[in-house]
Amino acid sequence: MGKYVVTGSASGMGLAVADKLRAEGHDVIGVDLKDADVTADLSTADGRARAIRELLAALDGVLDGAVFAAGVGPRRGNERTTVEVNVLGTTELLTALRPKLAAAGNAKVVVFGSNSTTSTPFVPRRAISLLDEGNTERATKILRRRGPLSGPAAYAASKLALSRWVRRAAASPEFAGAGVRVNIIAPGPVLTPLLKAQLEGASGNQVRSLPVPVREHGTPEQLAQWVMVMLSPAADFMVGSVVTVDGGTEALLRTKDWPSPMPLKRVPKMLNGLRQAKGKGQVADYSDA
Amino acid sequence: MGKYVVTGSASGMGLAVADKLRAEGHDVIGVDLKDADVTADLSTADGRARAIRELLAALDGVLDGAVFAAGVGPRRGNERTTVEVNVLGTTELLTALRPKLAAAGNAKVVVFGSNSTTSTPFVPRRAISLLDEGNTERATKILRRRGPLSGPAAYAASKLALSRWVRRAAASPEFAGAGVRVNIIAPGPVLTPLLKAQLEGASGNQVRSLPVPVREHGTPEQLAQWVMVMLSPAADFMVGSVVTVDGGTEALLRTKDWPSPMPLKRVPKMLNGLRQAKGKGQVADYSDA
Repeated sequence: MGKYVVTGSASGMGLAVADKLRAEGHDVIGVDLKDADVTADLSTADGRARAIRELLAALDGVLDGAVFAAGVGPRRGNERTTVEVNVLGTTELLTALRPKLAAAGNAKVVVFGSNSTTSTPFVPRRAISLLDEGNTERATKILRRRGPLSGPAAYAASKLALSRWVRRAAASPEFAGAGVRVNIIAPGPVLTPLLKAQLEGASGNQVRSLPVPVREHGTPEQLAQWVMVMLSPAADFMVGSVVTVDGGTEALLRTKDWPSPMPLKRVPKMLNGLRQAKGKGQVADYSDA
Repeated sequence: MGKYVVTGSASGMGLAVADKLRAEGHDVIGVDLKDADVTADLSTADGRARAIRELLAALDGVLDGAVFAAGVGPRRGNERTTVEVNVLGTTELLTALRPKLAAAGNAKVVVFGSNSTTSTPFVPRRAISLLDEGNTERATKILRRRGPLSGPAAYAASKLALSRWVRRAAASPEFAGAGVRVNIIAPGPVLTPLLKAQLEGASGNQVRSLPVPVREHGTPEQLAQWVMVMLSPAADFMVGSVVTVDGGTEALLRTKDWPSPMPLKRVPKMLNGLRQAKGKGQVADYSDA
Protein backbone atom coordinates (compact mmCIF):
# COMPACT_ATOMS: atom_id res chain seq x y z
CA MET A 1 0.00 0.00 0.00
CA GLY A 2 1.08 3.58 -0.57
CA LYS A 3 1.84 6.68 1.43
CA TYR A 4 -0.17 9.86 0.78
CA VAL A 5 -0.20 13.44 2.06
CA VAL A 6 -3.65 15.09 2.23
CA THR A 7 -4.01 18.76 3.16
CA GLY A 8 -7.35 19.95 4.50
CA SER A 9 -7.77 16.44 5.87
CA ALA A 10 -9.97 17.37 8.82
CA SER A 11 -13.15 18.27 6.96
CA GLY A 12 -15.08 18.37 3.69
CA MET A 13 -13.59 16.89 0.54
CA GLY A 14 -10.11 16.51 2.07
CA LEU A 15 -11.59 14.37 4.85
CA ALA A 16 -13.60 12.30 2.34
CA VAL A 17 -10.41 11.62 0.36
CA ALA A 18 -8.38 10.75 3.47
CA ASP A 19 -11.13 8.36 4.60
CA LYS A 20 -11.22 6.62 1.22
CA LEU A 21 -7.43 6.26 1.07
CA ARG A 22 -7.32 4.85 4.61
CA ALA A 23 -10.22 2.49 3.80
CA GLU A 24 -8.12 1.10 0.94
CA GLY A 25 -5.28 0.46 3.36
CA HIS A 26 -3.03 3.39 2.50
CA ASP A 27 -0.99 5.38 4.97
CA VAL A 28 -2.28 8.98 5.08
CA ILE A 29 -0.48 11.94 6.63
CA GLY A 30 -3.15 14.57 7.14
CA VAL A 31 -2.43 18.29 7.36
CA ASP A 32 -4.92 20.73 8.82
CA LEU A 33 -5.39 23.47 11.40
CA LYS A 34 -6.44 20.83 13.95
CA ASP A 35 -7.44 17.17 14.14
CA ALA A 36 -4.59 16.16 11.81
CA ASP A 37 -1.24 14.36 11.91
CA VAL A 38 0.48 17.63 11.06
CA THR A 39 -1.26 20.69 12.49
CA ALA A 40 -0.22 23.92 10.82
CA ASP A 41 -1.66 27.24 9.71
CA LEU A 42 -1.03 27.37 5.96
CA SER A 43 -1.97 31.07 5.82
CA THR A 44 1.44 32.11 7.17
CA ALA A 45 4.96 31.54 5.86
CA ASP A 46 5.93 30.16 9.27
CA GLY A 47 3.01 27.73 9.29
CA ARG A 48 3.87 26.45 5.82
CA ALA A 49 7.55 26.08 6.71
CA ARG A 50 6.58 24.11 9.80
CA ALA A 51 4.22 21.86 7.83
CA ILE A 52 6.98 21.16 5.31
CA ARG A 53 9.52 20.38 8.06
CA GLU A 54 7.14 17.99 9.79
CA LEU A 55 6.07 16.31 6.55
CA LEU A 56 9.63 15.72 5.41
CA ALA A 57 10.52 14.38 8.85
CA ALA A 58 7.57 11.98 8.73
CA LEU A 59 8.48 10.74 5.25
CA ASP A 60 11.45 8.45 5.52
CA GLY A 61 11.03 6.98 2.06
CA VAL A 62 9.05 7.83 -1.04
CA LEU A 63 5.66 9.52 -1.34
CA ASP A 64 3.12 7.81 -3.62
CA GLY A 65 0.78 10.73 -3.91
CA ALA A 66 -0.57 13.95 -2.49
CA VAL A 67 -3.93 15.68 -2.45
CA PHE A 68 -4.11 19.41 -1.82
CA ALA A 69 -7.61 20.09 -0.55
CA ALA A 70 -6.91 22.78 2.05
CA GLY A 71 -8.69 25.96 1.06
CA VAL A 72 -10.33 29.09 2.40
CA GLY A 73 -13.63 30.30 0.93
CA PRO A 74 -14.63 33.76 -0.26
CA ARG A 75 -15.14 36.29 2.53
CA ARG A 76 -14.68 40.03 2.43
CA GLY A 77 -11.90 41.18 4.69
CA ASN A 78 -10.30 37.73 4.49
CA GLU A 79 -8.60 38.24 1.11
CA ARG A 80 -5.02 37.82 2.29
CA THR A 81 -5.74 34.58 4.15
CA THR A 82 -7.63 33.22 1.13
CA VAL A 83 -4.78 33.76 -1.31
CA GLU A 84 -2.07 32.62 1.13
CA VAL A 85 -3.74 29.29 1.88
CA ASN A 86 -5.19 28.63 -1.56
CA VAL A 87 -2.07 29.46 -3.57
CA LEU A 88 1.07 29.22 -1.41
CA GLY A 89 -0.44 26.56 0.87
CA THR A 90 -0.31 24.26 -2.14
CA THR A 91 2.53 25.53 -4.34
CA GLU A 92 5.10 25.70 -1.51
CA LEU A 93 4.20 22.28 -0.13
CA LEU A 94 4.07 20.64 -3.56
CA THR A 95 7.47 22.10 -4.44
CA ALA A 96 8.95 20.80 -1.19
CA LEU A 97 7.43 17.33 -1.63
CA ARG A 98 8.42 16.97 -5.31
CA PRO A 99 11.66 15.01 -4.73
CA LYS A 100 9.84 12.45 -2.57
CA LEU A 101 7.11 12.14 -5.21
CA ALA A 102 9.61 11.76 -8.05
CA ALA A 103 11.38 9.03 -6.04
CA ALA A 104 8.17 6.95 -6.13
CA GLY A 105 8.49 6.63 -9.92
CA ASN A 106 4.79 6.87 -10.62
CA ALA A 107 3.29 9.26 -8.09
CA LYS A 108 0.01 11.08 -8.59
CA VAL A 109 -1.00 14.49 -7.28
CA VAL A 110 -4.46 16.05 -7.22
CA VAL A 111 -4.92 19.75 -6.53
CA PHE A 112 -8.31 21.25 -5.72
CA GLY A 113 -9.18 24.07 -8.10
CA SER A 114 -12.74 25.36 -8.35
CA ASN A 115 -15.34 26.12 -10.98
CA SER A 116 -15.38 29.64 -9.55
CA THR A 117 -12.35 30.13 -11.82
CA THR A 118 -14.68 30.21 -14.82
CA SER A 119 -17.95 31.47 -13.35
CA THR A 120 -16.87 34.51 -11.30
CA PRO A 121 -17.10 37.92 -13.01
CA PHE A 122 -14.82 40.91 -12.42
CA VAL A 123 -11.68 39.00 -11.38
CA PRO A 124 -8.69 41.34 -11.87
CA ARG A 125 -6.26 39.63 -14.27
CA ARG A 126 -3.28 41.44 -12.77
CA ALA A 127 -4.00 39.81 -9.40
CA ILE A 128 -3.94 36.38 -11.04
CA SER A 129 -0.50 37.00 -12.55
CA LEU A 130 0.83 38.35 -9.27
CA LEU A 131 -0.48 35.35 -7.35
CA ASP A 132 0.98 33.00 -9.94
CA GLU A 133 4.35 34.64 -9.12
CA GLY A 134 3.67 34.20 -5.40
CA ASN A 135 3.22 37.93 -4.74
CA THR A 136 0.29 37.68 -2.34
CA GLU A 137 0.83 41.13 -0.83
CA ARG A 138 0.43 43.17 -4.04
CA ALA A 139 -2.34 40.90 -5.30
CA THR A 140 -4.30 41.42 -2.09
CA LYS A 141 -4.10 45.21 -2.50
CA ILE A 142 -5.58 44.94 -5.98
CA LEU A 143 -8.27 42.49 -4.89
CA ARG A 144 -9.42 44.69 -1.98
CA ARG A 145 -10.22 47.44 -4.50
CA ARG A 146 -13.13 45.28 -5.69
CA GLY A 147 -15.06 46.40 -2.59
CA PRO A 148 -18.13 44.23 -1.98
CA LEU A 149 -16.92 41.79 -4.67
CA SER A 150 -13.47 41.38 -3.11
CA GLY A 151 -14.32 38.08 -1.40
CA PRO A 152 -15.42 36.15 -4.52
CA ALA A 153 -12.74 37.92 -6.60
CA ALA A 154 -9.98 36.85 -4.18
CA TYR A 155 -11.25 33.29 -4.10
CA ALA A 156 -11.53 32.98 -7.89
CA ALA A 157 -8.18 34.72 -8.45
CA SER A 158 -6.50 32.38 -5.98
CA LYS A 159 -7.85 29.27 -7.71
CA LEU A 160 -7.07 30.69 -11.19
CA ALA A 161 -3.47 31.42 -10.18
CA LEU A 162 -3.17 28.01 -8.54
CA SER A 163 -4.54 26.27 -11.66
CA ARG A 164 -2.12 28.15 -13.89
CA TRP A 165 0.87 27.42 -11.66
CA VAL A 166 -0.11 23.75 -11.39
CA ARG A 167 -0.67 23.27 -15.15
CA ARG A 168 2.73 24.78 -15.94
CA ALA A 169 4.45 22.67 -13.27
CA ALA A 170 2.54 19.52 -14.25
CA ALA A 171 3.78 19.63 -17.87
CA SER A 172 7.38 20.39 -16.87
CA PRO A 173 10.34 17.98 -16.93
CA GLU A 174 10.44 18.19 -13.11
CA PHE A 175 6.98 16.68 -12.75
CA ALA A 176 5.64 14.95 -15.91
CA GLY A 177 9.18 14.25 -17.04
CA ALA A 178 9.99 12.72 -13.66
CA GLY A 179 6.92 10.49 -13.68
CA VAL A 180 4.83 12.63 -11.30
CA ARG A 181 1.31 13.14 -12.71
CA VAL A 182 -0.29 16.31 -11.36
CA ASN A 183 -3.91 17.17 -12.16
CA ILE A 184 -6.63 19.51 -10.95
CA ILE A 185 -10.15 18.79 -9.81
CA ALA A 186 -12.55 21.75 -10.10
CA PRO A 187 -15.68 21.23 -8.00
CA GLY A 188 -18.84 23.28 -8.18
CA PRO A 189 -21.16 23.65 -5.18
CA VAL A 190 -20.44 20.62 -3.00
CA LEU A 191 -22.07 20.34 0.40
CA THR A 192 -19.01 20.87 2.60
CA PRO A 193 -18.67 22.92 5.79
CA LEU A 194 -17.22 25.66 3.54
CA LEU A 195 -20.34 25.77 1.32
CA LYS A 196 -22.67 25.51 4.32
CA ALA A 197 -20.96 28.54 5.86
CA GLN A 198 -21.40 30.43 2.59
CA LEU A 199 -25.07 29.50 2.36
CA GLU A 200 -25.65 30.68 5.93
CA GLY A 201 -23.56 33.83 5.48
CA ALA A 202 -24.06 37.15 3.74
CA SER A 203 -23.50 35.61 0.31
CA GLY A 204 -26.14 32.89 0.81
CA ASN A 205 -28.63 34.24 -1.72
CA GLN A 206 -25.84 34.83 -4.22
CA VAL A 207 -24.67 31.22 -3.91
CA ARG A 208 -28.22 29.90 -4.09
CA SER A 209 -28.89 31.84 -7.31
CA LEU A 210 -25.97 30.20 -9.19
CA PRO A 211 -27.44 28.15 -12.01
CA VAL A 212 -26.61 24.45 -11.59
CA PRO A 213 -28.13 22.65 -14.60
CA VAL A 214 -28.22 19.26 -12.87
CA ARG A 215 -30.43 20.81 -10.17
CA GLU A 216 -28.73 19.28 -7.17
CA HIS A 217 -25.58 19.80 -5.16
CA GLY A 218 -22.54 17.57 -5.20
CA THR A 219 -21.36 15.49 -2.26
CA PRO A 220 -17.83 15.21 -0.81
CA GLU A 221 -18.16 11.47 -1.48
CA GLN A 222 -18.65 12.00 -5.25
CA LEU A 223 -15.71 14.34 -5.48
CA ALA A 224 -13.54 11.94 -3.48
CA GLN A 225 -14.40 9.24 -6.02
CA TRP A 226 -12.94 11.39 -8.81
CA VAL A 227 -9.83 12.09 -6.76
CA MET A 228 -9.34 8.34 -6.24
CA VAL A 229 -9.43 7.76 -10.02
CA MET A 230 -6.98 10.62 -10.50
CA LEU A 231 -4.65 8.89 -8.01
CA SER A 232 -5.00 5.52 -9.79
CA PRO A 233 -3.15 4.05 -12.79
CA ALA A 234 -6.01 5.39 -14.96
CA ALA A 235 -4.24 8.75 -14.61
CA ASP A 236 -0.91 7.51 -16.03
CA PHE A 237 -1.70 9.41 -19.24
CA MET A 238 -3.29 12.46 -17.56
CA VAL A 239 -1.13 15.52 -16.89
CA GLY A 240 -2.18 19.08 -16.08
CA SER A 241 -5.85 18.42 -16.81
CA VAL A 242 -8.69 20.26 -15.11
CA VAL A 243 -11.50 17.85 -14.27
CA THR A 244 -14.61 19.94 -13.68
CA VAL A 245 -17.31 18.31 -11.54
CA ASP A 246 -19.81 21.11 -11.06
CA GLY A 247 -23.29 20.06 -12.12
CA GLY A 248 -22.93 21.87 -15.46
CA THR A 249 -22.44 25.51 -14.44
CA GLU A 250 -19.22 25.87 -16.44
CA ALA A 251 -20.77 24.26 -19.53
CA LEU A 252 -23.78 26.58 -19.22
CA LEU A 253 -21.93 29.85 -18.68
CA ARG A 254 -18.80 29.22 -20.78
CA THR A 255 -20.14 26.88 -23.50
CA LYS A 256 -18.13 28.34 -26.36
CA ASP A 257 -15.07 29.46 -24.40
CA TRP A 258 -13.55 26.00 -24.00
CA PRO A 259 -12.29 24.01 -25.76
CA SER A 260 -11.14 26.91 -27.93
CA PRO A 261 -9.02 26.77 -31.08
CA MET A 262 -5.39 27.70 -30.65
CA PRO A 263 -5.14 31.49 -31.08
CA LEU A 264 -2.56 32.87 -33.51
CA LYS A 265 -0.53 34.36 -30.64
CA ARG A 266 0.11 30.85 -29.29
CA VAL A 267 1.37 29.46 -32.61
CA PRO A 268 5.03 30.54 -32.15
CA LYS A 269 5.10 28.77 -28.79
CA MET A 270 3.57 25.69 -30.37
CA LEU A 271 6.04 25.64 -33.27
CA ASN A 272 8.86 26.12 -30.79
CA GLY A 273 7.45 23.26 -28.74
CA LEU A 274 7.34 21.00 -31.79
CA ARG A 275 10.96 21.88 -32.59
CA GLN A 276 12.28 21.36 -29.06
CA ALA A 277 10.10 18.44 -28.02
CA LYS A 278 12.54 15.74 -29.07
CA GLY A 279 15.49 17.39 -27.34
CA LYS A 280 13.44 17.81 -24.19
CA GLY A 281 12.45 14.15 -24.31
CA GLN A 282 8.82 15.14 -24.66
CA VAL A 283 8.09 12.99 -27.69
CA ALA A 284 6.08 9.92 -26.93
CA ASP A 285 7.73 6.58 -27.54
CA TYR A 286 5.85 5.05 -30.44
CA SER A 287 8.16 2.09 -30.78
CA ASP A 288 5.26 -0.32 -30.18
CA ALA A 289 3.17 1.28 -32.92
CA MET B 1 -27.43 -4.64 -15.56
CA GLY B 2 -27.83 -1.82 -18.04
CA LYS B 3 -28.21 -1.32 -21.76
CA TYR B 4 -25.68 0.82 -23.63
CA VAL B 5 -25.14 2.03 -27.19
CA VAL B 6 -21.51 2.36 -28.31
CA THR B 7 -20.62 3.84 -31.69
CA GLY B 8 -17.25 2.99 -33.20
CA SER B 9 -17.51 -0.29 -31.31
CA ALA B 10 -15.42 -2.37 -33.72
CA SER B 11 -12.00 -0.90 -32.99
CA GLY B 12 -9.84 1.37 -30.86
CA MET B 13 -11.30 3.12 -27.84
CA GLY B 14 -14.90 2.29 -28.77
CA LEU B 15 -14.02 -1.41 -28.76
CA ALA B 16 -12.19 -1.07 -25.43
CA VAL B 17 -15.28 0.56 -23.90
CA ALA B 18 -17.67 -2.05 -25.36
CA ASP B 19 -15.45 -4.83 -24.02
CA LYS B 20 -15.39 -3.32 -20.53
CA LEU B 21 -19.15 -2.81 -20.47
CA ARG B 22 -19.77 -6.39 -21.62
CA ALA B 23 -17.24 -7.70 -19.06
CA GLU B 24 -19.31 -6.00 -16.35
CA GLY B 25 -22.40 -7.80 -17.62
CA HIS B 26 -24.06 -4.95 -19.50
CA ASP B 27 -25.94 -5.29 -22.76
CA VAL B 28 -24.09 -3.38 -25.51
CA ILE B 29 -25.49 -2.45 -28.91
CA GLY B 30 -22.47 -1.68 -31.04
CA VAL B 31 -22.58 0.58 -34.10
CA ASP B 32 -19.84 0.54 -36.72
CA LEU B 33 -19.13 0.15 -40.42
CA LYS B 34 -18.72 -3.59 -39.91
CA ASP B 35 -18.37 -6.17 -37.12
CA ALA B 36 -21.15 -4.53 -35.11
CA ASP B 37 -24.75 -5.14 -34.04
CA VAL B 38 -25.84 -2.20 -36.16
CA THR B 39 -23.74 -1.71 -39.28
CA ALA B 40 -24.08 1.73 -40.81
CA ASP B 41 -22.03 4.40 -42.53
CA LEU B 42 -22.35 7.48 -40.32
CA SER B 43 -20.79 9.69 -43.02
CA THR B 44 -24.09 9.87 -44.94
CA ALA B 45 -27.54 11.10 -43.96
CA ASP B 46 -28.99 7.78 -45.14
CA GLY B 47 -26.52 5.80 -43.05
CA ARG B 48 -27.30 7.83 -39.93
CA ALA B 49 -31.05 7.50 -40.48
CA ARG B 50 -30.65 3.76 -40.85
CA ALA B 51 -28.55 3.51 -37.69
CA ILE B 52 -31.19 5.47 -35.77
CA ARG B 53 -34.03 3.28 -37.10
CA GLU B 54 -32.23 0.09 -36.16
CA LEU B 55 -31.20 1.38 -32.73
CA LEU B 56 -34.70 2.49 -31.83
CA ALA B 57 -36.07 -0.85 -33.05
CA ALA B 58 -33.54 -2.72 -30.90
CA LEU B 59 -34.38 -0.66 -27.82
CA ASP B 60 -37.69 -1.81 -26.44
CA GLY B 61 -37.25 -0.09 -23.08
CA VAL B 62 -34.92 2.47 -21.64
CA LEU B 63 -31.29 3.21 -22.49
CA ASP B 64 -28.90 3.50 -19.52
CA GLY B 65 -26.10 5.11 -21.41
CA ALA B 66 -24.36 5.80 -24.69
CA VAL B 67 -20.76 6.27 -25.77
CA PHE B 68 -20.02 8.07 -29.03
CA ALA B 69 -16.56 6.92 -30.08
CA ALA B 70 -17.02 6.69 -33.86
CA GLY B 71 -14.66 9.11 -35.54
CA VAL B 72 -12.64 9.73 -38.67
CA GLY B 73 -9.09 11.06 -38.42
CA PRO B 74 -7.43 13.93 -40.24
CA ARG B 75 -6.71 13.28 -43.92
CA ARG B 76 -6.52 15.74 -46.77
CA GLY B 77 -9.27 15.17 -49.31
CA ASN B 78 -11.39 13.46 -46.67
CA GLU B 79 -12.71 16.66 -45.04
CA ARG B 80 -16.40 16.07 -45.75
CA THR B 81 -16.37 12.53 -44.37
CA THR B 82 -14.50 13.71 -41.27
CA VAL B 83 -17.02 16.39 -40.36
CA GLU B 84 -20.07 14.26 -41.25
CA VAL B 85 -19.03 11.36 -39.02
CA ASN B 86 -17.45 13.37 -36.22
CA VAL B 87 -20.22 15.94 -35.84
CA LEU B 88 -23.53 14.64 -37.26
CA GLY B 89 -22.67 11.00 -36.56
CA THR B 90 -22.93 11.93 -32.88
CA THR B 91 -25.34 14.87 -32.69
CA GLU B 92 -28.07 13.22 -34.80
CA LEU B 93 -27.85 9.89 -32.98
CA LEU B 94 -27.72 11.51 -29.53
CA THR B 95 -30.76 13.65 -30.37
CA ALA B 96 -32.69 10.59 -31.52
CA LEU B 97 -31.73 8.54 -28.45
CA ARG B 98 -32.46 11.32 -25.95
CA PRO B 99 -36.02 10.21 -25.04
CA LYS B 100 -34.81 6.65 -24.31
CA LEU B 101 -31.97 8.05 -22.18
CA ALA B 102 -34.30 10.39 -20.29
CA ALA B 103 -36.62 7.47 -19.60
CA ALA B 104 -33.81 5.73 -17.69
CA GLY B 105 -33.89 8.50 -15.07
CA ASN B 106 -30.16 8.58 -14.50
CA ALA B 107 -28.49 7.85 -17.84
CA LYS B 108 -24.91 8.82 -18.65
CA VAL B 109 -23.47 9.75 -22.04
CA VAL B 110 -19.80 10.09 -23.00
CA VAL B 111 -18.80 11.77 -26.26
CA PHE B 112 -15.29 11.51 -27.66
CA GLY B 113 -13.78 14.93 -28.28
CA SER B 114 -10.04 15.32 -28.81
CA ASN B 115 -7.14 17.39 -27.53
CA SER B 116 -6.64 18.46 -31.15
CA THR B 117 -9.36 21.01 -30.32
CA THR B 118 -6.83 22.99 -28.30
CA SER B 119 -3.50 22.06 -29.95
CA THR B 120 -4.23 22.54 -33.68
CA PRO B 121 -3.31 25.92 -35.18
CA PHE B 122 -5.09 27.69 -38.06
CA VAL B 123 -8.57 26.24 -37.50
CA PRO B 124 -11.10 28.56 -39.21
CA ARG B 125 -13.58 29.77 -36.57
CA ARG B 126 -16.32 30.21 -39.15
CA ALA B 127 -16.15 26.50 -39.97
CA ILE B 128 -16.65 25.65 -36.29
CA SER B 129 -19.81 27.77 -36.10
CA LEU B 130 -21.15 26.29 -39.31
CA LEU B 131 -20.52 22.73 -38.12
CA ASP B 132 -22.14 23.54 -34.78
CA GLU B 133 -25.25 24.46 -36.82
CA GLY B 134 -24.95 21.22 -38.80
CA ASN B 135 -23.93 22.93 -42.04
CA THR B 136 -21.27 20.45 -43.13
CA GLU B 137 -21.32 21.51 -46.80
CA ARG B 138 -20.36 25.15 -46.31
CA ALA B 139 -17.93 24.27 -43.53
CA THR B 140 -16.15 21.79 -45.81
CA LYS B 141 -15.67 24.47 -48.49
CA ILE B 142 -14.00 26.75 -45.95
CA LEU B 143 -11.86 23.95 -44.54
CA ARG B 144 -10.59 22.89 -47.98
CA ARG B 145 -9.13 26.37 -48.46
CA ARG B 146 -6.56 25.49 -45.79
CA GLY B 147 -4.71 23.48 -48.45
CA PRO B 148 -2.11 21.15 -46.93
CA LEU B 149 -3.49 21.91 -43.46
CA SER B 150 -7.09 21.03 -44.40
CA GLY B 151 -6.92 17.55 -42.88
CA PRO B 152 -5.92 18.58 -39.34
CA ALA B 153 -8.09 21.72 -39.60
CA ALA B 154 -11.17 19.65 -40.53
CA TYR B 155 -10.52 17.19 -37.73
CA ALA B 156 -10.01 19.88 -35.07
CA ALA B 157 -12.97 21.93 -36.34
CA SER B 158 -15.22 18.87 -36.22
CA LYS B 159 -14.26 18.06 -32.63
CA LEU B 160 -14.51 21.74 -31.58
CA ALA B 161 -18.01 22.01 -33.06
CA LEU B 162 -19.00 18.71 -31.49
CA SER B 163 -17.70 19.80 -28.07
CA ARG B 164 -19.58 23.09 -28.30
CA TRP B 165 -22.83 21.39 -29.37
CA VAL B 166 -22.50 18.78 -26.65
CA ARG B 167 -21.72 21.27 -23.86
CA ARG B 168 -24.75 23.38 -24.79
CA ALA B 169 -27.01 20.31 -24.98
CA ALA B 170 -25.56 18.81 -21.79
CA ALA B 171 -26.48 21.86 -19.68
CA SER B 172 -29.99 22.16 -21.18
CA PRO B 173 -33.27 21.21 -19.52
CA GLU B 174 -33.64 18.41 -22.12
CA PHE B 175 -30.51 16.63 -20.90
CA ALA B 176 -29.24 17.79 -17.46
CA GLY B 177 -32.75 18.81 -16.48
CA ALA B 178 -34.07 15.39 -17.52
CA GLY B 179 -31.42 13.52 -15.54
CA VAL B 180 -29.19 12.66 -18.51
CA ARG B 181 -25.55 13.48 -17.74
CA VAL B 182 -23.54 14.13 -20.91
CA ASN B 183 -19.78 14.68 -20.78
CA ILE B 184 -16.81 14.74 -23.14
CA ILE B 185 -13.55 12.84 -23.04
CA ALA B 186 -10.69 14.48 -24.94
CA PRO B 187 -7.87 12.04 -25.62
CA GLY B 188 -4.41 12.91 -26.85
CA PRO B 189 -2.29 10.45 -28.85
CA VAL B 190 -3.67 7.02 -27.94
CA LEU B 191 -2.38 3.96 -29.73
CA THR B 192 -5.46 3.10 -31.77
CA PRO B 193 -5.70 1.97 -35.40
CA LEU B 194 -6.49 5.62 -36.22
CA LEU B 195 -3.25 6.87 -34.65
CA LYS B 196 -1.21 4.03 -36.15
CA ALA B 197 -2.50 4.96 -39.60
CA GLN B 198 -1.50 8.59 -38.96
CA LEU B 199 1.97 7.57 -37.78
CA GLU B 200 2.47 5.47 -40.89
CA GLY B 201 0.97 8.10 -43.22
CA ALA B 202 2.16 11.39 -44.65
CA SER B 203 1.63 13.19 -41.33
CA GLY B 204 3.72 10.68 -39.35
CA ASN B 205 6.59 13.03 -38.55
CA GLN B 206 4.16 15.79 -37.67
CA VAL B 207 2.34 13.54 -35.20
CA ARG B 208 5.62 12.28 -33.74
CA SER B 209 6.86 15.83 -33.17
CA LEU B 210 3.88 16.77 -30.98
CA PRO B 211 5.17 17.44 -27.48
CA VAL B 212 3.71 14.99 -24.97
CA PRO B 213 5.13 15.92 -21.54
CA VAL B 214 4.53 12.49 -20.03
CA ARG B 215 6.74 11.00 -22.76
CA GLU B 216 4.59 8.03 -23.62
CA HIS B 217 1.39 7.33 -25.55
CA GLY B 218 -1.95 6.48 -24.06
CA THR B 219 -3.68 3.14 -24.38
CA PRO B 220 -7.30 2.43 -25.36
CA GLU B 221 -7.55 0.60 -22.03
CA GLN B 222 -6.69 3.74 -20.00
CA LEU B 223 -9.17 5.85 -21.90
CA ALA B 224 -11.86 3.19 -21.48
CA GLN B 225 -11.26 3.33 -17.72
CA TRP B 226 -12.12 7.05 -17.72
CA VAL B 227 -15.23 6.42 -19.81
CA MET B 228 -16.37 3.80 -17.30
CA VAL B 229 -16.07 6.32 -14.46
CA MET B 230 -17.97 8.87 -16.54
CA LEU B 231 -20.75 6.28 -16.97
CA SER B 232 -20.81 5.51 -13.23
CA PRO B 233 -22.63 7.22 -10.34
CA ALA B 234 -19.43 9.24 -9.77
CA ALA B 235 -20.65 11.33 -12.73
CA ASP B 236 -24.01 12.21 -11.13
CA PHE B 237 -22.69 15.72 -10.49
CA MET B 238 -20.74 16.05 -13.78
CA VAL B 239 -22.40 17.77 -16.73
CA GLY B 240 -20.85 19.15 -19.91
CA SER B 241 -17.29 18.71 -18.65
CA VAL B 242 -14.33 18.07 -20.92
CA VAL B 243 -12.04 15.48 -19.38
CA THR B 244 -8.67 15.79 -21.11
CA VAL B 245 -6.45 12.69 -20.99
CA ASP B 246 -3.57 13.64 -23.26
CA GLY B 247 -0.23 13.24 -21.52
CA GLY B 248 -0.05 16.97 -20.82
CA THR B 249 -0.01 18.51 -24.32
CA GLU B 250 -2.95 20.81 -23.58
CA ALA B 251 -1.45 21.94 -20.26
CA LEU B 252 1.87 22.62 -22.01
CA LEU B 253 0.53 24.53 -25.02
CA ARG B 254 -2.46 26.27 -23.44
CA THR B 255 -1.30 26.71 -19.83
CA LYS B 256 -2.81 30.16 -19.29
CA ASP B 257 -5.79 29.83 -21.64
CA TRP B 258 -7.90 27.64 -19.34
CA PRO B 259 -9.33 27.98 -16.80
CA SER B 260 -9.81 31.63 -17.74
CA PRO B 261 -11.67 34.32 -15.81
CA MET B 262 -15.12 35.16 -17.08
CA PRO B 263 -14.70 37.87 -19.73
CA LEU B 264 -16.80 41.03 -19.48
CA LYS B 265 -18.78 40.07 -22.61
CA ARG B 266 -20.11 36.98 -20.80
CA VAL B 267 -21.31 38.88 -17.72
CA PRO B 268 -24.75 39.81 -19.11
CA LYS B 269 -25.36 36.13 -19.91
CA MET B 270 -24.25 35.18 -16.41
CA LEU B 271 -26.45 37.77 -14.72
CA ASN B 272 -29.34 36.64 -16.88
CA GLY B 273 -28.58 33.07 -15.89
CA LEU B 274 -28.62 34.01 -12.20
CA ARG B 275 -31.96 35.75 -12.64
CA GLN B 276 -33.61 32.94 -14.59
CA ALA B 277 -32.04 29.98 -12.82
CA LYS B 278 -34.79 29.54 -10.25
CA GLY B 279 -37.57 29.71 -12.83
CA LYS B 280 -35.73 27.19 -14.99
CA GLY B 281 -35.39 24.85 -12.04
CA GLN B 282 -31.62 25.12 -12.29
CA VAL B 283 -31.00 25.99 -8.67
CA ALA B 284 -29.56 23.20 -6.58
CA ASP B 285 -31.69 21.90 -3.73
CA TYR B 286 -29.91 22.86 -0.53
CA SER B 287 -32.65 21.62 1.75
CA ASP B 288 -30.22 19.22 3.43
CA ALA B 289 -27.71 21.99 4.07
